[in-house]
Amino acid sequence: MKSDISYLYKPYLHTRELMPENQETPIHFLNERTTPIEYIYKRNHFLYPALDSAAFFLPVVGEVERPMVFPYNYIKSLPSKTIKMVLECAGNKRAYFDPKTYGEQWKDGAISQVAWKGVSLKDLLYFTGIRSTAIEVAFEGYDYGTRKDIDRVFPYARSLPLEKALHPDTIIAYELNSQPIPYDHGYPLRLVVPQWYGMASVKWLKEIRVIDHKFTGPFQAIDYVYYPNKEDDFGKKPVTEIKVNSIIQQPMNYSVLDTGSHSINGIAWSGHGTIKEVELSFDQGLTWKNVELYQDKNQQHLWTFWKYAWTVEEKGEHTIMCRAKDSYGNIQPLEAEWNRKGYGYNAVYIIKVKIE
Amino acid sequence: MKSDISYLYKPYLHTRELMPENQETPIHFLNERTTPIEYIYKRNHFLYPALDSAAFFLPVVGEVERPMVFPYNYIKSLPSKTIKMVLECAGNKRAYFDPKTYGEQWKDGAISQVAWKGVSLKDLLYFTGIRSTAIEVAFEGYDYGTRKDIDRVFPYARSLPLEKALHPDTIIAYELNSQPIPYDHGYPLRLVVPQWYGMASVKWLKEIRVIDHKFTGPFQAIDYVYYPNKEDDFGKKPVTEIKVNSIIQQPMNYSVLDTGSHSINGIAWSGHGTIKEVELSFDQGLTWKNVELYQDKNQQHLWTFWKYAWTVEEKGEHTIMCRAKDSYGNIQPLEAEWNRKGYGYNAVYIIKVKIE
Repeated sequence: MKSDISYLYKPYLHTRELMPENQETPIHFLNERTTPIEYIYKRNHFLYPALDSAAFFLPVVGEVERPMVFPYNYIKSLPSKTIKMVLECAGNKRAYFDPKTYGEQWKDGAISQVAWKGVSLKDLLYFTGIRSTAIEVAFEGYDYGTRKDIDRVFPYARSLPLEKALHPDTIIAYELNSQPIPYDHGYPLRLVVPQWYGMASVKWLKEIRVIDHKFTGPFQAIDYVYYPNKEDDFGKKPVTEIKVNSIIQQPMNYSVLDTGSHSINGIAWSGHGTIKEVELSFDQGLTWKNVELYQDKNQQHLWTFWKYAWTVEEKGEHTIMCRAKDSYGNIQPLEAEWNRKGYGYNAVYIIKVKIE
Repeated sequence: MKSDISYLYKPYLHTRELMPENQETPIHFLNERTTPIEYIYKRNHFLYPALDSAAFFLPVVGEVERPMVFPYNYIKSLPSKTIKMVLECAGNKRAYFDPKTYGEQWKDGAISQVAWKGVSLKDLLYFTGIRSTAIEVAFEGYDYGTRKDIDRVFPYARSLPLEKALHPDTIIAYELNSQPIPYDHGYPLRLVVPQWYGMASVKWLKEIRVIDHKFTGPFQAIDYVYYPNKEDDFGKKPVTEIKVNSIIQQPMNYSVLDTGSHSINGIAWSGHGTIKEVELSFDQGLTWKNVELYQDKNQQHLWTFWKYAWTVEEKGEHTIMCRAKDSYGNIQPLEAEWNRKGYGYNAVYIIKVKIE
C-alpha cells in the first residue's frame, strides 16, 4: 500500500530544551560504532551563533612568540589526524541524582561516538611558538548570550592546562564523521578534547589565546565545577575527565519480558584508560558475572560494546545491575558522588524487568 | 553560511520502544491546536501489519440483520463527520507512578490533539441493522502477534458497549488532519472513540462484529484494566474514559530561571465534560490561583490551553503545582490511584524550578 516505510521503526533525538537546543542521542536504540550525524546529541548553552567569513580565520594570540591567524583552508592543508572517540556531556545521567539537581534532565543519551578529523593544536602552536609565561590555553566560541546568575553577556569560553592543550590528540577539527562539521555541531572549526567531558570541546571556534593565568570565565569557574555541598562551595573541583561508566541499552528499564533467553547488551566507557571488565549482577550486587566485551584494535577513546545471554525462567520482578571497570582500576560506585550541579553521574546502572 | 536551518530548534518524537514502535509526542514543545502528523504519538502493541486489498473492504457481521461488507470508497461517499479531539494513551504518565509500574515508561507525551474525518459507526449499523440480542460491538485490527503472558497469537481487538458504539461521535475514520490516515496511524480505516483512552480507537480496522456477550480478548480482559492491588485482581475495573488531567508545558521540571516575569503555560483535558478551571499553587497546595483558559467554541473533545504570568523575585527552589477541574466537578487528586498496570495517572502536576 505504502512503499516508503523508512520512517517506521526510526528513533529520534530526545528533546530536552529547544532554545537553546538540547537534545539527547536515542542511545538505547543505536548499535552503530559511529553515531550517525542525525543522532549525535546536541548540547548548547546559547542560541546558534550567526557566522560570517571571519569564522574561517582562526587567530592564535596571547602568550605566543608570533600571533597568527590561520585560514580554514590552510588548517585543512596541514597533516591531519582522525580521532574516533566518545563525546559525553558532563551532565549526562543528571536525572538520576538523588536528591535531584537542577539543569537539563539528561538521562542516558548525552553521549555519542564520533570521528573527528583535524589538526593537532600543538602543530598550530608550533607555528606561533609559546612564551615561557604560558600556563593555559583559552578557547572562545562564537556562541554567546546572557546567564541566569550574572546579568551580563558572555561568550562560551573555556581553557585547558598547557599539558592537555599540547596533547597530540587535542585537535582543531574541521570534519565530523567524514564530512564538514555540521553547523549545529560547531562548523567550521571546533576544538576537540578526547577523554574530557564535552564542555571542553568548544564549538564555532573564534579565538585561541595562550594565557599566563588561570582562566576564570563562568563556564569554567561557575559551571562545570563539582560542588559537593548544597549550600556552599566548599571542596569544589573542576570537571575534567570522563568517569568510568556504562549503561544497559536493552532491555529497557521496567519492560516486560517472557521467560526464556534474552540478550542483555550495552556500552561502557572511561575517559582515562580503556574498559577492562563489565559485570552484571542479578542478586542486588551480591555476585557479579563477567560479560563479553567487543572492542576495536584502536580502542583508546572508544566505548566498549558488551553483551550477555540471560536465561530466565522465574516469573516476577528482576533487578539487573551493571558496572564497568577501566584499565586504571576505576570502577563504577554503588552511589554516585552527589554534586550540586549534577555532573559526572556514574553509579552502577540498575534496571528492573518483569518476567511474565 | 548555511541557508537551510529548518532542522534547528526542532523537537522530535521521543522513542520509548522501536519494535513495536512506541514514541511520545514532544508535548512540552508544541503549541499548535492540532498536533502536526509527524508529532502524533505512536502506541503499537505489535509490529506494523502487512495490508492487502482486503483492508479496503470492511465487514460488519455478527448480531446484525444483514451482514455487509463496506468498501472504503463507499464509506468515503457517506455523509462525513469531523471530530477534533484529544487522543491519549491510557498509559500516559505511567512513569510517575510510585511504586513504579511495568510497561512503556511514558511521561507526558502519550497524548496528541487530532482531527479525524469519517462516518458515524451508527450510520453503518443502520444499514446492517442490529439484532435485539446485541450487547457489544467488537473491533479487530489487522495488527497481531504474540503476548508475553499467553503463548498464542492474538490480533489487537477490543469492544465497546452498544451505547458507546452508537454514539454519533464514535466514527470509522479515513482522514487524519485532513489527509488519508497515515499507515502508522491506522490506514485505511480506524475506529475513533472520543472521550475514551486511545486503546479503544482500533487501528487498521479489519472487522466489526456485533456480539451478544461480553468481549474477552486479552486487550480488554487482561490489559487496559485497573488492578488496584499488586498481587491479586481484586477490585479490578475496565479502563474507559479519559480522566481529568493537566500538565505544565513550560517551564520544564528542574529548570533554572532568572528573577522577574515568566510565563507558565500548559494544557488541561478531561474525557468527560470540559475543563472549567485550572489552578496553580506556589505554596505546596495551601492556596491555589486561577489561570487563564483558552478554549474553542467547539471545545467538547479538545484540550484547554492555559497560561499564567508569574513574577518571582525570591531566589532559590520553587515548587509549582497544577490541577484541573472539569464540568462534572472531577478534579485532579494529590495522589494518583495506583494500579498494577499503570493506567490513568492524573495526580496534580508538580514541577520544581530554581531561581538564580
